[in-house]
Amino acid sequence: MANLNGTTSDLRSVFLGVYSVLKSELLNDLAFEWTDDSRQWVDRMLDYNVPGGKLNRGLSVIDSYKLLKEGNDLIEDEVFLASALGWCIEWLQAYFLVLDDIMDSSHTRRGQPCWFRVPKVGMIAVNDGIMLRNHIPRILKKHFREKPYYVDLLDLFNEVEFQTAAGQMIDLITTIEGEKDLSKYSLPLHRRIVQYKTAYYSFYLPVACALLMAGENLDNHVNVKNVLIDMGIYFQVQDDYLDCFGDPDKIGKIGTDIEDFKCSWLVVKALEHCNEEQKKILFEHYGKANPADVAKVKAVYNDINLQGVFAEYESKSYDRITSSIDAHPSKAVQAVLKSFLSKIYKRHK
Amino acid sequence: MANLNGTTSDLRSVFLGVYSVLKSELLNDLAFEWTDDSRQWVDRMLDYNVPGGKLNRGLSVIDSYKLLKEGNDLIEDEVFLASALGWCIEWLQAYFLVLDDIMDSSHTRRGQPCWFRVPKVGMIAVNDGIMLRNHIPRILKKHFREKPYYVDLLDLFNEVEFQTAAGQMIDLITTIEGEKDLSKYSLPLHRRIVQYKTAYYSFYLPVACALLMAGENLDNHVNVKNVLIDMGIYFQVQDDYLDCFGDPDKIGKIGTDIEDFKCSWLVVKALEHCNEEQKKILFEHYGKANPADVAKVKAVYNDINLQGVFAEYESKSYDRITSSIDAHPSKAVQAVLKSFLSKIYKRHK
Repeated sequence: MANLNGTTSDLRSVFLGVYSVLKSELLNDLAFEWTDDSRQWVDRMLDYNVPGGKLNRGLSVIDSYKLLKEGNDLIEDEVFLASALGWCIEWLQAYFLVLDDIMDSSHTRRGQPCWFRVPKVGMIAVNDGIMLRNHIPRILKKHFREKPYYVDLLDLFNEVEFQTAAGQMIDLITTIEGEKDLSKYSLPLHRRIVQYKTAYYSFYLPVACALLMAGENLDNHVNVKNVLIDMGIYFQVQDDYLDCFGDPDKIGKIGTDIEDFKCSWLVVKALEHCNEEQKKILFEHYGKANPADVAKVKAVYNDINLQGVFAEYESKSYDRITSSIDAHPSKAVQAVLKSFLSKIYKRHK
Repeated sequence: MANLNGTTSDLRSVFLGVYSVLKSELLNDLAFEWTDDSRQWVDRMLDYNVPGGKLNRGLSVIDSYKLLKEGNDLIEDEVFLASALGWCIEWLQAYFLVLDDIMDSSHTRRGQPCWFRVPKVGMIAVNDGIMLRNHIPRILKKHFREKPYYVDLLDLFNEVEFQTAAGQMIDLITTIEGEKDLSKYSLPLHRRIVQYKTAYYSFYLPVACALLMAGENLDNHVNVKNVLIDMGIYFQVQDDYLDCFGDPDKIGKIGTDIEDFKCSWLVVKALEHCNEEQKKILFEHYGKANPADVAKVKAVYNDINLQGVFAEYESKSYDRITSSIDAHPSKAVQAVLKSFLSKIYKRHK
């Protein structure tokens, strides 16, 4: 997720300081009798997989909580707790990425080899993914057990993890090797995949954590959830768009969604807008690694003006999301939602 | 776990009925928008991986709860809830087994191919393991959200899962390919692996579930935990013993711990009892697939009378565990613990 935050480097270093505290607590967790080897292993595994991303999801818990407190300075304890929840989301993300990379046979992640490709790691990475996931309730228990919202935090992380795994499942089973079938791809399927696989944990979860810390009951904030999910879907559509039409220098990678037969918003929209002849081209050339095949797909995208289709989608999404935000009764909540929207609207990276 | 229960087939069929109810609830979980394909996938995945074992762990929740209620007949609702908790343990076990088989490159499990070896499954099995794990909090939320012990159940499952993953981790990192080193194997390491990887979830967890349902505070039952962990370790030592000295027809498989370089109680004890010459033989021949190598290891085991060493261990364990049980103030709790012990003492399968 590119640069969701305009956070100062100061907050970032406070946040990273909390990572060190949490790691050291986990490495001395009394629920397990550590050996030197196992403590060293987890230490290295955490440093390799948890803090190396952009940290946008984690930092946005602190940002959101600050906005909910409407300008009141946070005490040190509140910053620590909001950071701990932010790190729980980063841990969750690390867990998904370590296991996703195994499932996708990926090679690199965040500019370094995927964890399972590191010498001597291999399939131990599956258990490391499980360890990452298990650290979340350890962090929550240590720091939130006595809070009135503890059980809601556990329920929240459980539900969001379930939704993410379910989204990943439909993504995986629609792209089973040897059953590449473009006719399965549709807008409702695409929406489902991105909503469940990405939007809940990337957009809803950080704000939901901040709301719980602020003493709110999440049942009263279904509208907030819906707006954030809407934004999360829009964000992922941008991602799909930038994969093909973005500047590789800005997005930090060369997109391969066409080669990888991804259920991208672009191919779904192309199927919707193209004529029979163009459809034939897409069916023949989508999902092949050869640059000549990719070029033919891109030619169809240009012929039907997919960039224009996207521009219209983007502006409609912006208007719809803005109206939903303006309809919210709380100015503080509006500020949280607007902060998210401003960070993604018309982004190029 | 062989035949931990002398349960009637009646209870077993009630228990299996609860499985169908839980599965159907999960396949209609409103936290996700199912597609036909995804619902079908999970349905098949659950039937393949969850109910095919001996179900001892799950059934023992109901047995234990009955004993804690000291002869009072259970109402239908209680049987259902105890069964649901039993199934949560079976789901936990299925999750571990699906992922363990991937990590160990295993071929068969419960008399059928491992799930990841089923055509079209492959690495999707990693996500299926995650789905299995995620079903547990869904089951708990649906049926226990309003119970006073709900948060304790969540904490319990989280802690036990963490301990199991940690045990699996030390097992994995001590047997990293290319670093086979027998001198790392010792009794404390063996104890740690089996205690964390097996004893918590197989012995402590079923009883802890029953105690919570009976309104008990687990903090008051540290002694019960300790006895169950002690039994779990003894159970795993039996497992190691039977792998080499048991009757393959009775245990249902041909043991390969020697070939697989396992940190078995037998090799650890052998290293403790053998002379320098015998130690040399173990170092040279342990962990090799060739039958001639295996025979040399077994010859050392016989020369130092490992069967006698085990018999002494077994009788000492029995006496120690029995005294611990007799020291417990509650007759009902004693009955639960004795029921577990009687099912494993001097077992041959």
